[in-house]
Amino acid sequence: MGTVVVDVMLKSEILDPQGQAVAGALPRLGFNQFTDVRQGKRFELTVQGEVTDEVLAAARSAAETMLSNPVIEDVVGVRAESNDAGSQVAEPLA
Amino acid sequence: MGTVVVDVMLKSEILDPQGQAVAGALPRLGFNQFTDVRQGKRFELTVQGEVTDEVLAAARSAAETMLSNPVIEDVVGVRAESNDAGSQVAEPLA
Repeated sequence: MGTVVVDVMLKSEILDPQGQAVAGALPRLGFNQFTDVRQGKRFELTVQGEVTDEVLAAARSAAETMLSNPVIEDVVGVRAESNDAGSQVAEPLA
Repeated sequence: MGTVVVDVMLKSEILDPQGQAVAGALPRLGFNQFTDVRQGKRFELTVQGEVTDEVLAAARSAAETMLSNPVIEDVVGVRAESNDAGSQVAEPLA
């Protein structure tokens, strides 16, 4: 089984109140490093078998037509990802 | 300016009605390749300057304490990303 990951973010000129709320809350918890926060969506599409170029093309088409609203959102990433816990996985916290 | 990307997904045992709605709608648009869809969140945290190990550690801590609900969600990725749209390449550390 393969997985295709699709990342969708609001266009930079679109106001992002969720991201602003997070950005405003971070300093109150002591995180002063971050000057801006944007919040978007991440989809994991599961396919039977390998993630072929055809599957990626279908995912890209689905991302543009259904997973995002092209008026206000950009598809910023469409890529295959292994199902095994890999380099993308954060360090587990106790 | 650097960007840290944080990916948060519902735990696999948690029902994901948004993902199910997308999975149910895809075949109606002709996308029959995908057997399952899960929808999660993607945060872009902007920092002044380089994304250092310290910044990544702070982002990881923020991800666990504020950007996700550890009861129902997993932080599946915390990584540096260049500001170029679509690029998944991590920024070189100073």
